[in-house]
Amino acid sequence: MSDKGKQSEEQIIQGFLAPLSQGYAGAFGLADDCARLTPPPGHDLIITCDPVREGVHFFADDAPQDIAYKALAVNVSDLAAKGAKPLAYVMALSFPVFPQANWLRGFAGGLRAAQDAFGLHLIGGDTDKAPGPFSAAITMFGTLPTGTMVRRGGAQSGDLVFVSGSLGRSAFGLQLRRDSSLAARWGLSAAEHDTLLLSYLRPCPRPGLCAALRDYANAAMDISDGLMKDLGRMCALSDVGAQVELAALPLCDAVAKIIAADQQQRNLVLSGGDDYELLCTVPPEKASLFAAAAQTAAVPVTQIGTITEDRHSVVVCDAGGAELPLPHTGWDHF
Amino acid sequence: MSDKGKQSEEQIIQGFLAPLSQGYAGAFGLADDCARLTPPPGHDLIITCDPVREGVHFFADDAPQDIAYKALAVNVSDLAAKGAKPLAYVMALSFPVFPQANWLRGFAGGLRAAQDAFGLHLIGGDTDKAPGPFSAAITMFGTLPTGTMVRRGGAQSGDLVFVSGSLGRSAFGLQLRRDSSLAARWGLSAAEHDTLLLSYLRPCPRPGLCAALRDYANAAMDISDGLMKDLGRMCALSDVGAQVELAALPLCDAVAKIIAADQQQRNLVLSGGDDYELLCTVPPEKASLFAAAAQTAAVPVTQIGTITEDRHSVVVCDAGGAELPLPHTGWDHF
Repeated sequence: MSDKGKQSEEQIIQGFLAPLSQGYAGAFGLADDCARLTPPPGHDLIITCDPVREGVHFFADDAPQDIAYKALAVNVSDLAAKGAKPLAYVMALSFPVFPQANWLRGFAGGLRAAQDAFGLHLIGGDTDKAPGPFSAAITMFGTLPTGTMVRRGGAQSGDLVFVSGSLGRSAFGLQLRRDSSLAARWGLSAAEHDTLLLSYLRPCPRPGLCAALRDYANAAMDISDGLMKDLGRMCALSDVGAQVELAALPLCDAVAKIIAADQQQRNLVLSGGDDYELLCTVPPEKASLFAAAAQTAAVPVTQIGTITEDRHSVVVCDAGGAELPLPHTGWDHF
Repeated sequence: MSDKGKQSEEQIIQGFLAPLSQGYAGAFGLADDCARLTPPPGHDLIITCDPVREGVHFFADDAPQDIAYKALAVNVSDLAAKGAKPLAYVMALSFPVFPQANWLRGFAGGLRAAQDAFGLHLIGGDTDKAPGPFSAAITMFGTLPTGTMVRRGGAQSGDLVFVSGSLGRSAFGLQLRRDSSLAARWGLSAAEHDTLLLSYLRPCPRPGLCAALRDYANAAMDISDGLMKDLGRMCALSDVGAQVELAALPLCDAVAKIIAADQQQRNLVLSGGDDYELLCTVPPEKASLFAAAAQTAAVPVTQIGTITEDRHSVVVCDAGGAELPLPHTGWDHF
């Protein structure tokens, strides 16, 4: 119950955040109690809620631009997996101490970059001072034609399993963020080191694939807690199993080089978190249409396996068809 | 990157939270990546985002039932102030350690009580383990007929200023929560002590007033940071001033007794936070219709002052018309 003059919640909101709401009438310049958001006629509103917390989802000394960009990108990834086009978000910030203006400028700049990349506006939120590390709890809204949301639990036996992009980049980026000397041990060039690190700091979600998912996929989700864990969740909800071909997993050159240097690292491709690629299943008769739509959208996709009747059995096989042991099952928040 | 068996995020979600989503198709049992929410035809969706954090909005040893109830009630209050009927919410939880089952049961019970009281469903969210105190970041959705949202910045010179309920109860409840011996000093009965404490622990928002606000109010907001601070915000945004009559402020018997015992405490009625009553301005020619609609809705309302032309001047006057000094201007989060 005090008024500290310059250091007020309203200073943060009006000085740094309100400009991010410009151009969206229902945001009311962040000066009202609530925002107004109504999907266009014939469209559903799709909602995701994915916070980022210092020490869990990013490091305290990561650049505020990157923290902000990632906070939005991971939510865009959730929407894309459902076939939804990103539209707007609200954000609850918690700071342990009043943030520096430079930090706030950087954070707002990262939000702006992600807003521009994904077609978003900030439309509301809250700013608190509270003990504990900084966090940003984002709730994001997307739209899609009524009734076309792609479900996680729709996989059918016989479907082909696809992933976008390549796997493991971000998990190796996190290893390099923790210990940059690994780059030399793995024989990475400076450019390869930087590419992997950037995959961790600024994930690249795939909203471009959302129309192809709506048109052709039986099931979809984004890979945030590791391929095998997330595929397991999809199969459990769909009451099916899956067989993944190790040799089919798409790897970028840098990740392929790491695994060539140290076969043990292969597990990180299967279980490492933060991929933010899309995982989906497509019936075989639609696979070529799906691949063509993905190509049109300029999003690389790769078939990595098939959905089986073996309920809840999710296995990885080597080139000879032998099942591989899986020591890790992925990221859990507890 | 570990799997600790019983202590998983999914255990919390499926064991305690998913039942709170039952009956809302677009929640998908909290088992999909996103929720689907589409306002009925002819309606806008209204969104608010108000987190509660241990040590800021509640005490660590408050009952989990109360923490949960308050987390939803404060968001219902924001929606009510805009004229919106509560519909659904998403919730991002952060726990420093895996919570006890008893605590989770109590928390879910408090959410259930508030859901039943206000007509809400839980439709999505996220659960993290993160350092720092427990927090629950709620984003809540309400609906109202298209174009009827009541704005904060619509107050007009000559409008009458109304508040719902009575003021200061929660602020005195907080004082009693901190030091129960104050009850004796203020001459409160056990019942009066309990009533005030409950006002702090389980605020009573006023969604019943939302139709009357839509029909008759030029401006509305809820009082969460103290009457004078929030009225000041409304006037600043509306480019007007306000004059409040001290004698007109509605006080419950217990608060009146406290002020009779200690005149100094009067300031808390003007500046104490957490009222969660509604503040609105109504043109004089609609005042009797507004009062009648409020009576029909069984929400007490009181005229406490008038909107003036004196831009940004918000004053309180005593019975003789003399302006009173205001030592505190209300709650700020920094």
